[in-house]
Amino acid sequence: MGKNLVTGGFGFIGLCLIRQLIEEGEKVVVYVRKKALPRSAEDLRDRIEIVKGDVKNFSRLLDTVKEHDIETIWHIAATLVLDCEESPAECFQTNVMGTVNVFEAARMTSVSSVLYISTGMVYGSEPTRMISDVTPHQPTLMYATTKECCERIGDYYHRKFGLNFRGIRFPMVIGPGREISHYFGDYSGIFEMPARGKPYTVHVDPDNLSCLIYVKDVAGALIALKKADAGRLRQRVYNIQGFNTTLRNMSDALKNVLPEAQIDFDWDQSEEMRLANSAVYYTLDNTAAKEDLEWEPQYTLEKMPEDFINEIRSGRAG
Amino acid sequence: MGKNLVTGGFGFIGLCLIRQLIEEGEKVVVYVRKKALPRSAEDLRDRIEIVKGDVKNFSRLLDTVKEHDIETIWHIAATLVLDCEESPAECFQTNVMGTVNVFEAARMTSVSSVLYISTGMVYGSEPTRMISDVTPHQPTLMYATTKECCERIGDYYHRKFGLNFRGIRFPMVIGPGREISHYFGDYSGIFEMPARGKPYTVHVDPDNLSCLIYVKDVAGALIALKKADAGRLRQRVYNIQGFNTTLRNMSDALKNVLPEAQIDFDWDQSEEMRLANSAVYYTLDNTAAKEDLEWEPQYTLEKMPEDFINEIRSGRAG
Amino acid sequence: MGKNLVTGGFGFIGLCLIRQLIEEGEKVVVYVRKKALPRSAEDLRDRIEIVKGDVKNFSRLLDTVKEHDIETIWHIAATLVLDCEESPAECFQTNVMGTVNVFEAARMTSVSSVLYISTGMVYGSEPTRMISDVTPHQPTLMYATTKECCERIGDYYHRKFGLNFRGIRFPMVIGPGREISHYFGDYSGIFEMPARGKPYTVHVDPDNLSCLIYVKDVAGALIALKKADAGRLRQRVYNIQGFNTTLRNMSDALKNVLPEAQIDFDWDQSEEMRLANSAVYYTLDNTAAKEDLEWEPQYTLEKMPEDFINEIRSGRAG
Amino acid sequence: MGKNLVTGGFGFIGLCLIRQLIEEGEKVVVYVRKKALPRSAEDLRDRIEIVKGDVKNFSRLLDTVKEHDIETIWHIAATLVLDCEESPAECFQTNVMGTVNVFEAARMTSVSSVLYISTGMVYGSEPTRMISDVTPHQPTLMYATTKECCERIGDYYHRKFGLNFRGIRFPMVIGPGREISHYFGDYSGIFEMPARGKPYTVHVDPDNLSCLIYVKDVAGALIALKKADAGRLRQRVYNIQGFNTTLRNMSDALKNVLPEAQIDFDWDQSEEMRLANSAVYYTLDNTAAKEDLEWEPQYTLEKMPEDFINEIRSGRAG
Repeated sequence: MGKNLVTGGFGFIGLCLIRQLIEEGEKVVVYVRKKALPRSAEDLRDRIEIVKGDVKNFSRLLDTVKEHDIETIWHIAATLVLDCEESPAECFQTNVMGTVNVFEAARMTSVSSVLYISTGMVYGSEPTRMISDVTPHQPTLMYATTKECCERIGDYYHRKFGLNFRGIRFPMVIGPGREISHYFGDYSGIFEMPARGKPYTVHVDPDNLSCLIYVKDVAGALIALKKADAGRLRQRVYNIQGFNTTLRNMSDALKNVLPEAQIDFDWDQSEEMRLANSAVYYTLDNTAAKEDLEWEPQYTLEKMPEDFINEIRSGRAG
Repeated sequence: MGKNLVTGGFGFIGLCLIRQLIEEGEKVVVYVRKKALPRSAEDLRDRIEIVKGDVKNFSRLLDTVKEHDIETIWHIAATLVLDCEESPAECFQTNVMGTVNVFEAARMTSVSSVLYISTGMVYGSEPTRMISDVTPHQPTLMYATTKECCERIGDYYHRKFGLNFRGIRFPMVIGPGREISHYFGDYSGIFEMPARGKPYTVHVDPDNLSCLIYVKDVAGALIALKKADAGRLRQRVYNIQGFNTTLRNMSDALKNVLPEAQIDFDWDQSEEMRLANSAVYYTLDNTAAKEDLEWEPQYTLEKMPEDFINEIRSGRAG
Repeated sequence: MGKNLVTGGFGFIGLCLIRQLIEEGEKVVVYVRKKALPRSAEDLRDRIEIVKGDVKNFSRLLDTVKEHDIETIWHIAATLVLDCEESPAECFQTNVMGTVNVFEAARMTSVSSVLYISTGMVYGSEPTRMISDVTPHQPTLMYATTKECCERIGDYYHRKFGLNFRGIRFPMVIGPGREISHYFGDYSGIFEMPARGKPYTVHVDPDNLSCLIYVKDVAGALIALKKADAGRLRQRVYNIQGFNTTLRNMSDALKNVLPEAQIDFDWDQSEEMRLANSAVYYTLDNTAAKEDLEWEPQYTLEKMPEDFINEIRSGRAG
Repeated sequence: MGKNLVTGGFGFIGLCLIRQLIEEGEKVVVYVRKKALPRSAEDLRDRIEIVKGDVKNFSRLLDTVKEHDIETIWHIAATLVLDCEESPAECFQTNVMGTVNVFEAARMTSVSSVLYISTGMVYGSEPTRMISDVTPHQPTLMYATTKECCERIGDYYHRKFGLNFRGIRFPMVIGPGREISHYFGDYSGIFEMPARGKPYTVHVDPDNLSCLIYVKDVAGALIALKKADAGRLRQRVYNIQGFNTTLRNMSDALKNVLPEAQIDFDWDQSEEMRLANSAVYYTLDNTAAKEDLEWEPQYTLEKMPEDFINEIRSGRAG
């Protein structure tokens, strides 16, 4: 695929993507604000190049792309949901200006492809809907608003400059090493804590049907999207998802492979919790991705817990 | 309404809006990059305050809003369609960053309302469709992409911070003083040049059905939107339009009041011309504006030519 | 010299420089915020290329430099003294960020030389001193502060990246077409208005000794600096000046060639006037420029009025 | 002193300053890019407020200053010497734009004082000079160039807006927790590693006379500067230093209190090493600081090693 630049590569999704790219024999340069490797990424020390830089710094990004002769940018760096709500200006600067910098750097150089992480939250916060790629967007949170905006701009760079812009939207991602905050933590915490031998208390409604995806499927879908033949793509950005389930079912699935897991339920029925989790009450339709990318999720609720536990025990997570 | 700041106030739409605001007894501060009054605006010299500033300069904008105790910002400043195509980065900086600066300045101060100019071009370039306010957006040109993005962000500031963000989308605006470029010029030029006693040659297909609006109706709609009771608004941004017609009909309408007008037709059938004019092949549905704002266009094809000629002759244009 | 880009080329100094470059057979691209040629520059219409752009827009600047294969940037664009005092943030963004953009664009491309306009005001506002190139800087106004800062950064780009950065500092520039404001206007107005057949009233102390330079000497010095052999330069930025005189002497010099000139004196002894004119109470020592650049001013007080009047009458001013 | 904001507060100097401010009974808000407390700062967890923000984000900085009713900003955040050489654009954005944001935020709000960290490196890299506060500046590295520039701008905000801008310049800072890189590490490493029970090899010329200051004296000087009576200040920025010594003398001083310390010498005579250490071949004259601030360094070469070892053993470092 040529040389790859991964922005924000030391985050939860970034590290997973980097490992899959390396497994495919790809050369990877990571563009991050702090050069220090996370503890869980020591295995990558001699297998990647690291450049200290901020996506908000266009000069630095452009220099990096040129010096390393980059062909594909995997643009993962972003200010996340809660920080975006805390400071919309910061959110705008990193998520929109930073992404426009990526597009401009690509336009001016040999970079031919930009792979982008959007979000299922561009569809807004109306619960229990089946969402296809043509459902109209209606973002509510600032994070989703900036992602929607960049989809449009990426689409423009594709039409105007022939930039091979491609992206995916997905629901709540779970996986080892994801930060476990009160609001968004349950879906990963329910596996991670017991895998580390610690008890875990679920705060979200245990019987609510949620739409989830395992982080390895996010990385896998992005790579499948990169490989897909241009002629087959009906659109630039694809919806993907893993499976629908409830936290109670997740608890059961974990206990099948880890019987000693201690999981309690203590439902926080506050408005804040409901809002924060509004992103997961969707079902994203995988049909277009399945047809155009020949991609399907590898991880079902049954298959995922074992892999999750292995990753935790291998030390490759947070 | 409190004190008003009009950004980009010395442009075609800005000057028309300022005159209507002053007629309503409003106090107006104009925020512009060059302080010099345009020749056609000498009548405004002692009736407005002028501040030299750029919407891209947040500090300056914030100072201005605070020093002048502004209550409403009419945000008209923007990089226009063809310049946006020439430099998407410039387009992004002025149209998106500049608008976020307006929202942030409003959030931090006593400004309660931001009135915004969007565009019917957010619906894209598929010809001959009836467009309502709920038609999904599909912007193609960079200008429309940035306007769509700012609609979303404005909507967010409304929901999150209670900012009274309101906007209008409209088709091709015509009126005295509009810059007459080859690509977008015919719809105004066909009136302006004969009104100045000069011949005019139309380059667009004379029989193509187009959707237009007179500049005084744009300003009028924006003021009606500002005055509309919050409880009646079903949405933040409204579609408005004036009338559907052809250039041949416009020629006839003009000759009714100016029989000596010399108008020739020389259709430029190039792809560039077709693309540039793709914005006008729509019909925007006025229904929501009519119901919620109690607004209807004042200028029909029959009524407009006389007013247009009067404005040209009064020296209040270009 | 290769192809030239002149930023801010439609200002007072820029137009004069462009004409001299063209006389030397140079190809000139002008980078300006408004594409429209000033009335007084109609003679340049078919002799230059014009790009619409802002020095604050790094992407656009970089594109321009690359597309036009620029070898030398003459960086004249700047926010001027009084506007800098009005908005230090604007001053910083245009004068410092804009200049760093020029340096960065040069670093990344084939541009080998950046010629820069600094100011004698970097030496501060202590009256009646003889100033050499090694006199310590002590800027007081924001304009001078930003110019001093960019001299340092230019010097750094020279040492670090081998950028051929060269600049000049000079006192009050006079010449046809200079904006005649109350505070800074007398030194040009005293010639311009009578040359246009109008009376002029001087507001500055008529007997104060001032240090001036004619705009053609500014442009000439900059071109001489560009041509000077690198091995002869003892420094990156040179002081230049034209002559020391008083407004009373200027009045006399003009009347020698234009006996009908009507000039009155009405000294405004306010603190504001004193401060605004503090920049001209210096004598800048030309020695280093004379030795290293083999440059000397062409215009003395005796020679200048005739040229000034010719320019006004030819229509090449304001 | 009112409420304090410390930018970049989780760095080496920032943490030391925060502890001294808290000891003085001050309320401290820390403005940092990552909210997570460093391990060595666990003692501060309940004694400070932490705001996640970047000095490059003006909106966020302004919000923070207003929400927390800040009276004094201690502006420590900066891109450091080697990173500045790596990316001058990043250096400029953080060190100059970030600092202008601090000045602008202060100008617009209740903030009355900005305390600033400059550097002795503004005097350039000529070895073995006695430097007083009036020695002309001649910065060579980008870091020093940006610090010099901000001194000028701070001075301007003082004169123009009455901002109580005050700063210090100092030589190489040493202390527990300083990052020990190959180029700048010896002066701290020679104490830190033996204090941790590890051997250390010195790479700099062991007999070179260097000018150093202990980090507690930097924080102490900054606080003394804040407290100094305005009427006594002859300037805005003061030179301070601790003591002149050689690495061989430092080795001896440490062994007096830690006889088991293992220190070897292996002089790296490369040009890179010489350049990197050029900042420490100065003697900064403390006279003005002594007279105006009534400040003198508390830590001599004899007194420092014991305190250094205590800090390392207490866990309050790195």
